[in-house]
Amino acid sequence: MTKMTLNCPLPYQPKQIVMAHGGGGRMMQQLIDTIIQPIFDNDILNQKHDSAVININQSKLALTTDSYVINPLFFSGGNIGKLAICGTLNDLAMSGAKPLYITCSLIIEEGFLITNLQRILESMQEIAQQAGVKIVTGDTKVVEKGKGDGLYINTAGVGIIADNIEVNPNKIQVGDHIIINSDIARHGMTIMLEREGIEFENDLKSDCADLSNLVQILINQDIDLHCLRDLTRGGLASGLIELATHSQLQFEINDSILPIQESVKSGCDILGFDPLYIANEGCFVLFVSALESEKALNYLQQHPLGQQACVIGEVTAVNDKGIVNLKTALGSHRVLDLLSGEQLPRIC
Amino acid sequence: MTKMTLNCPLPYQPKQIVMAHGGGGRMMQQLIDTIIQPIFDNDILNQKHDSAVININQSKLALTTDSYVINPLFFSGGNIGKLAICGTLNDLAMSGAKPLYITCSLIIEEGFLITNLQRILESMQEIAQQAGVKIVTGDTKVVEKGKGDGLYINTAGVGIIADNIEVNPNKIQVGDHIIINSDIARHGMTIMLEREGIEFENDLKSDCADLSNLVQILINQDIDLHCLRDLTRGGLASGLIELATHSQLQFEINDSILPIQESVKSGCDILGFDPLYIANEGCFVLFVSALESEKALNYLQQHPLGQQACVIGEVTAVNDKGIVNLKTALGSHRVLDLLSGEQLPRIC
Repeated sequence: MTKMTLNCPLPYQPKQIVMAHGGGGRMMQQLIDTIIQPIFDNDILNQKHDSAVININQSKLALTTDSYVINPLFFSGGNIGKLAICGTLNDLAMSGAKPLYITCSLIIEEGFLITNLQRILESMQEIAQQAGVKIVTGDTKVVEKGKGDGLYINTAGVGIIADNIEVNPNKIQVGDHIIINSDIARHGMTIMLEREGIEFENDLKSDCADLSNLVQILINQDIDLHCLRDLTRGGLASGLIELATHSQLQFEINDSILPIQESVKSGCDILGFDPLYIANEGCFVLFVSALESEKALNYLQQHPLGQQACVIGEVTAVNDKGIVNLKTALGSHRVLDLLSGEQLPRIC
Repeated sequence: MTKMTLNCPLPYQPKQIVMAHGGGGRMMQQLIDTIIQPIFDNDILNQKHDSAVININQSKLALTTDSYVINPLFFSGGNIGKLAICGTLNDLAMSGAKPLYITCSLIIEEGFLITNLQRILESMQEIAQQAGVKIVTGDTKVVEKGKGDGLYINTAGVGIIADNIEVNPNKIQVGDHIIINSDIARHGMTIMLEREGIEFENDLKSDCADLSNLVQILINQDIDLHCLRDLTRGGLASGLIELATHSQLQFEINDSILPIQESVKSGCDILGFDPLYIANEGCFVLFVSALESEKALNYLQQHPLGQQACVIGEVTAVNDKGIVNLKTALGSHRVLDLLSGEQLPRIC
């Protein structure tokens, strides 16, 4: 195996898959842009949403898929099953869709405890029921010991997008406010500390949550959501960079406003991680016009998952390279760049 | 790990997952019936189709998912990518749906050759294009060396079912003819021989193929297809037993009519396998009224994937246990029973 530093500044194109190819950073983008996208090339795939928007019989539907390979399978605030259902609900929600149906496919390693499988499936069902969706079909595969890691789950989801709703990166405009719903980096930091066996005094928990109900509230209030993005692998920074690059705009983000738990901040300081790049599982940004910003904030803050909602920045200019500028507490500026991979693999 | 014989006649309920839980036989049925189904319990899941039939805005859609963990990844007649797309197209087709959109989610083991990934994705795209479907969204995860086996693929698919079409096990009736489209056991035998490194003189190839076009032809001819079932894991026997059990009917199958390649027969004889339980990937049974049987055969036989189509049996009686009776060449009868697991793991 070729070794590399995760922040290698030169284009690095190995012949083999490396962990960074799954990390939500530059190497994953390269793999998708140079290998996967060109082969599957089509108009829907090329939109690069969290979900594909498809039209069937005059209905606008969202379709999404994700495989979950998180380690450990159980963590403070959730488990792989809760994560899978929340992740799929969130991907649908980020397209403005109301989630309807979910599939569940299991790849189980020989020797996995059936009681653990039960606990995980029960978590899936619990979240699905709360969200009003049904898990309607599935698949079960078993692989030999040493050919998996306990359990991998794939969920795919279908949702419906109301006729008048269009939520996508092409709608982001200069002047838009960028709002975040909650504090960042909790999921990644929880997994990191659990994996390393580090214990914190206070109750650090993954933010793993279903955002679809919150998004539906905003939609029902007729707020024109220009774009939504959940901040999973690669964290806030990677999500914003992808959107800025795609829409060829410049975002200014105010670092000192970003909500972040003290324990998460301490953990990052101790371990030398940048919270901006750490994965979230219940955190998203929304882009709305300055006119609708206060209304959106108001509804967000009334919801348990949006109590810390705040405007973290603005879309300031057209910029063909797409730039995310971070204004630090000291007044200096820092241009955010994609990491090569993820600071921590198998986070979701 | 608890050891077991694969044909253990007693109910065996281990506390851990064993390979047989993924084999398409009795243990997988038990896992689904006693663990998975009761947790996810809902009207759509409980229909136990190859696809879930869902209604969105007056459109009747089919939704399906499958993870592919086949070993080896490349085999005579296909590879894991071709298998994944064909498998998903076939699951949709078995519900009478016209496939429209497919998702592709990859779990790649660190160290996997990117050229092999390309070849596999190209196969996926080739089959998708031939079938007129688009691969519209996806996901890429990477796991550490020793936590996977090269590549696992999940595909989910969405298709549309015409308003007047209803294809499902509840429609099977006494008097129905049971038709098969082609010779059996080729996929499993190919994988088995490749895995064991046994070479045969003649060109044994997996039957891996997209059946959706053939099924659409039958539908377009207004043939009332009572039920369709592709004969994957567990082979012809398991597929028929499941349908007989579900519909509480008795099927009589004529063993001497079953199409089977000489090389497959020899392979089974040498290795001691029963071809009735060996997986297929381009083979299905259809149930039609005796009146429409000849018409169906006629259209099947005109298609490259149906040249060997023939009536292999009939639905003879109501039977609350659901029985599949095999009439052998010597005139004796044998009641088919589910195997505990699969004769060969990781066949798809």
